[in-house]
Amino acid sequence: MSTLSEPLAIALGDPSGIGPEIILGAWARLKAAGALPPLFVVGGPQVLAAAAEHAGIDCPLVPIADPAEALFASAAGLPVMAGLDARYTPGAPSTDGARLAFASLSWATRFALSGVASGLVTAPVSKAALAAIGFDYPGQTEFLADACALPYRDAVMMLAGPSVRAVPLTVHVALAEVPALLSSELITHKGRVVAAALSRDFGIAAPRLAIAALNPHAGEGGQFGDEDQRIIAPAIAALRAEGINAFGPVPGDALFTPRARATYDAALTMYHDQALIPVKALDFDEGVNVTLGLPIIRTSPDHGTAFDIAGTGVADPGAMVAAIRMAAGMAQARARG
Amino acid sequence: MSTLSEPLAIALGDPSGIGPEIILGAWARLKAAGALPPLFVVGGPQVLAAAAEHAGIDCPLVPIADPAEALFASAAGLPVMAGLDARYTPGAPSTDGARLAFASLSWATRFALSGVASGLVTAPVSKAALAAIGFDYPGQTEFLADACALPYRDAVMMLAGPSVRAVPLTVHVALAEVPALLSSELITHKGRVVAAALSRDFGIAAPRLAIAALNPHAGEGGQFGDEDQRIIAPAIAALRAEGINAFGPVPGDALFTPRARATYDAALTMYHDQALIPVKALDFDEGVNVTLGLPIIRTSPDHGTAFDIAGTGVADPGAMVAAIRMAAGMAQARARG
Repeated sequence: MSTLSEPLAIALGDPSGIGPEIILGAWARLKAAGALPPLFVVGGPQVLAAAAEHAGIDCPLVPIADPAEALFASAAGLPVMAGLDARYTPGAPSTDGARLAFASLSWATRFALSGVASGLVTAPVSKAALAAIGFDYPGQTEFLADACALPYRDAVMMLAGPSVRAVPLTVHVALAEVPALLSSELITHKGRVVAAALSRDFGIAAPRLAIAALNPHAGEGGQFGDEDQRIIAPAIAALRAEGINAFGPVPGDALFTPRARATYDAALTMYHDQALIPVKALDFDEGVNVTLGLPIIRTSPDHGTAFDIAGTGVADPGAMVAAIRMAAGMAQARARG
Repeated sequence: MSTLSEPLAIALGDPSGIGPEIILGAWARLKAAGALPPLFVVGGPQVLAAAAEHAGIDCPLVPIADPAEALFASAAGLPVMAGLDARYTPGAPSTDGARLAFASLSWATRFALSGVASGLVTAPVSKAALAAIGFDYPGQTEFLADACALPYRDAVMMLAGPSVRAVPLTVHVALAEVPALLSSELITHKGRVVAAALSRDFGIAAPRLAIAALNPHAGEGGQFGDEDQRIIAPAIAALRAEGINAFGPVPGDALFTPRARATYDAALTMYHDQALIPVKALDFDEGVNVTLGLPIIRTSPDHGTAFDIAGTGVADPGAMVAAIRMAAGMAQARARG
């Protein structure tokens, strides 16, 4: 892990959620395991100090003024950029907290874009709290695409755990809208992004992509829906014609058995729950949300702010640990690439 | 297991699929574990003898002429009703085989209905092979509802494994048709059937039913679809008003985490993959398809005929073992009831 030449930037997330305590908990767990990559938190020294006391986590905080100080400061504790902060009010989101979350995300993104950070790990934000201060993106992923001057569709969300990697091709839309949103072009576009990212960021030379069917039993020869033959099969053929090892359409329920999971590097699914159900059923405490297709590396724990348990110390930092390890591994793969 | 006063009837399924070998394998495994309930196979003595030789399973077959002989014949081996049979052609479905599958299912159903069998366990059939001989039901479940003189909607499919029980409220329909097929009345009707069956057949005094949302994040306050608030929430309220412990709508991806699974006895989901993905991801080799709401007990291994591996001896009898154990347990629960 120590081979990263630049540290990872950790965005604080909503300071009244579980973000601060899972950052501290992840730091402590990685430190104890001797597996701590160089990293720093973008803002929130007071928030983190209060959260550490609240949750009873022993984590010395080292204020820094510039990301370049992070590598040296790491020896003494967790480096935290000073200058951005708020009061720590666990479980009680506020506009001040939302402003801190936004500032932390913005600065962390800039550090990753300029190359002074090797990647970005984001703690959970509250969409409602951010909307209240004028943040008009559906989520952090779309903000990042915009910051990278790319259309939203180029930023592809992948959920990754120890058991499975899954990409939902449509995300936050009503289930009724899913069939009309699918097109062969969408599937091939996202398939290309995923294949390229698995090579560049995960070191998989010839990625295998399993493409899910939309309908039960892939429509059983057109008996229940024709999208699998009309839209998905041609997209798979187009990807294969480009030399991408894509196969399917695989019926959704056949796609996540232990035997099936051994046959691919990522599953491309047609809608939110088709990807998220298996990831959360199999890898709940270790699920990582990875944004593929951007010039910067970005990972995030696959859970929310959990305001209801913030500050109680019961939040499991496992997914943040996994998000940090994955970002570090991706940065190493790019450096080797 | 030996407390059943009547044996279970095992329908052979398609004799050219893996049915014969998994019946034999399940018998051998349950026998070795000292957990064999009284049972008999309805037809196929030649098929079973050939399959046993093919797969190298040591299972003495005891021909019987009447279900009443099964209890005594069990001491000597696996009782098999004589009179119905076919040639054993693994991997090569035929009309003779389909006729045997249909006759076995029909007779097994009659034995369960008349009470000479305590329940029915069905091996997998080929819908295409059955359709070719004029069987015009979508599946065995609909045939059974008809045989019990009930409308199809009263026969509710539940998938059950060691990790989770899940009921899909719509099954073999295109995903695009699902939203329009959902109604509060459908959900309350099926919820009642499931709650009653969990009490009667599974001995759960006050069953807890988790009701899935249709849309991601349950529509996030109507932002992506209104079905969760308009259709599902009122159905949950109606079930609760009747004294049934139903709750939700729970977002699909939140419904199958380990913590969530501990909070309910069955999950009611809105469509096929929402139920089948988690069951097959978590419990693939032990998934049982249970038909709730019928006067007779019916279970089945949750997999198909697997013609591609039939006769090779590699088929795992685990799901058939689980289906037999579940049917025996359900029969005991009813007897105690």
